[in-house]
Amino acid sequence: MAQDAVHINLNGGRSYAIQFAPFRAVPRLLAAAELRKGPCLIVTDTNVAGLYLEKLRGYLLKAGWSPLPGLILPAGERSKAPELLQQIYDHALGAGIDRQTPVLALGGGVIGDLAGYAAATLLRGLPLVHLPTSLIAQVDSSIGGKTGINHSVGKNLIGAFYQPKLVCTDLDALQSLPELEWTSGLAEVVKHGLIADAEFAHELSTNWDRILRRDKNTVRHMVIKAAAIKARIVSEDERESSLRAILNFGHTFGHAIERIAGYGQFTHGEAVAVGMRAALKVSVLLNPDLPYTTIDSLLKRLPVRNSIKDLDPTKLTQTMYFDKKVQAGRLRLVLLRGIGSAYVTDKVTEEQISAGWDSARNA
Amino acid sequence: MAQDAVHINLNGGRSYAIQFAPFRAVPRLLAAAELRKGPCLIVTDTNVAGLYLEKLRGYLLKAGWSPLPGLILPAGERSKAPELLQQIYDHALGAGIDRQTPVLALGGGVIGDLAGYAAATLLRGLPLVHLPTSLIAQVDSSIGGKTGINHSVGKNLIGAFYQPKLVCTDLDALQSLPELEWTSGLAEVVKHGLIADAEFAHELSTNWDRILRRDKNTVRHMVIKAAAIKARIVSEDERESSLRAILNFGHTFGHAIERIAGYGQFTHGEAVAVGMRAALKVSVLLNPDLPYTTIDSLLKRLPVRNSIKDLDPTKLTQTMYFDKKVQAGRLRLVLLRGIGSAYVTDKVTEEQISAGWDSARNA
Repeated sequence: MAQDAVHINLNGGRSYAIQFAPFRAVPRLLAAAELRKGPCLIVTDTNVAGLYLEKLRGYLLKAGWSPLPGLILPAGERSKAPELLQQIYDHALGAGIDRQTPVLALGGGVIGDLAGYAAATLLRGLPLVHLPTSLIAQVDSSIGGKTGINHSVGKNLIGAFYQPKLVCTDLDALQSLPELEWTSGLAEVVKHGLIADAEFAHELSTNWDRILRRDKNTVRHMVIKAAAIKARIVSEDERESSLRAILNFGHTFGHAIERIAGYGQFTHGEAVAVGMRAALKVSVLLNPDLPYTTIDSLLKRLPVRNSIKDLDPTKLTQTMYFDKKVQAGRLRLVLLRGIGSAYVTDKVTEEQISAGWDSARNA
Repeated sequence: MAQDAVHINLNGGRSYAIQFAPFRAVPRLLAAAELRKGPCLIVTDTNVAGLYLEKLRGYLLKAGWSPLPGLILPAGERSKAPELLQQIYDHALGAGIDRQTPVLALGGGVIGDLAGYAAATLLRGLPLVHLPTSLIAQVDSSIGGKTGINHSVGKNLIGAFYQPKLVCTDLDALQSLPELEWTSGLAEVVKHGLIADAEFAHELSTNWDRILRRDKNTVRHMVIKAAAIKARIVSEDERESSLRAILNFGHTFGHAIERIAGYGQFTHGEAVAVGMRAALKVSVLLNPDLPYTTIDSLLKRLPVRNSIKDLDPTKLTQTMYFDKKVQAGRLRLVLLRGIGSAYVTDKVTEEQISAGWDSARNA
């Protein structure tokens, strides 16, 4: 039987738990996290509200909480914008929050990032609870405290590191996830294996068919394992000064794809899937001993609807230099040393990056 | 000879120094704080730019830094608004910052709060350096990591706790401060004495004439002492969970005055001066042994241009209940136990608050 909680310990004695439990357990878990029973603010989106909002309100009311009117935002990446952030501020301040009013972010990565950032900055910080419903949120974005919104110059350029008091991950929510969101989330799962856990990467290959059809036991094991990998990495490096950067494997390429293709053409997961292929190619150019074919065959299992063949490679490369990981004009990339082992380097040439794009284009 | 630095130690091993030194020492102090020499972004306002911006750029250029084009914002509290924050974001991201680009907040409390909040949230946190030029910034707002902007519902409702890497306080800047800003800042100095240091409060009474005419040695001693008091309090309670709340003595009343009178009718310091008189009255109602006359005579020395006699006391009281320190509908107030000793209570009645307003009105 798999464990049903992952604990995150940060410096300064701060810690919190990722609990794998159905949402009906939320009131009990809020109490265990010592949050003050009373008003709370649920922020969700139009996709998720119909499935869980009233149920969650019901659980909370029954346990003696007084949920404020919920806020239902438009689903999608475009909601990570200053205007929507302002809408949360207006709603929350109008509803009469105080510093102990928890914000419950019920949804996928966009809601987690946006509501998390609102919680980080309202009254200089309200207690935050993540209730992730998508795969990408459950294994990645709800863990580690990154919150933020987009700026016209690029994604996630405005934000804060802000840790939740609790993450409650309802694995059943994954069963109702649209297929595209499911397969997109798998990109981050595969990434966790490739950068940090060779055994897990191997398991993913072995179990791939069961994963695609969302076999419950396989999914449970996979999500808890992937969440634990992320938790371990961010516990060691909360503010992304070193180790944590390896989580960006495939992301510098991926962000460029999202940016040049226009938001919506590629999901984040699809862009990362293609980006990992490019990063893998660069990795093998620097280290010919890398088991390229084994890794590439795992990456090719990630479904991607579109190709990057119509995207201008020069523009893609230029965009990478605008990514916020660029330091003093030198592009830092995450590459693989082997399966389960990644590193950061600024010793990559533009030619090698071009070769990476070529490889991803023709994959 | 007074010390020329105050050190702030926070949990998790974080620390930084408040250096009392002329701005020409900034490049040396940046190096000592281990900030990466290269591009940096100076944010200032129209009042301060003419006095210090070019000088500071000169010092930095001479030492091998490459200051990005400086950003000069309109002076005044109205700049603590979402639109001006967005202007900093646009300017900074357009200028090509990366995560190691320091933001230098050159100015008074508004610039420190606004540029500090921009630094806290750009790329999830850039290194922040405070260069406070006003008395209120030097003894209060640059110390403790509070940053933020206003919302139409109230002041400082959006923000973050974000610690600077360095504070460089040039005491000579105080000599060119407009009289109104000088006397307004004295309110926070007096407050620091009343809540935490009876000996300092006594010194202020004794030295009041020298303080008003800004005798250099007296000012130096006073500012360093006041900064050290604030530093001690915030070191013990970075996130305002308990002790730090005493710094709000006079502020819940003061915020209501600022809000009802309309921003600009009272400076923050004037509003706090009047607010402290009201809070003192409430304090003595709860504790008749308080040396009311001694304290009130010190408070009366703080110059205030306007009276609150035209402000509706009912509205003032209602506004206090919207202050972000309100928890679950109970108003928490900071009161004095004695000179140099303050406490927080939620046991104050609306009648006692009204008596406070009456006292401040007729002072």
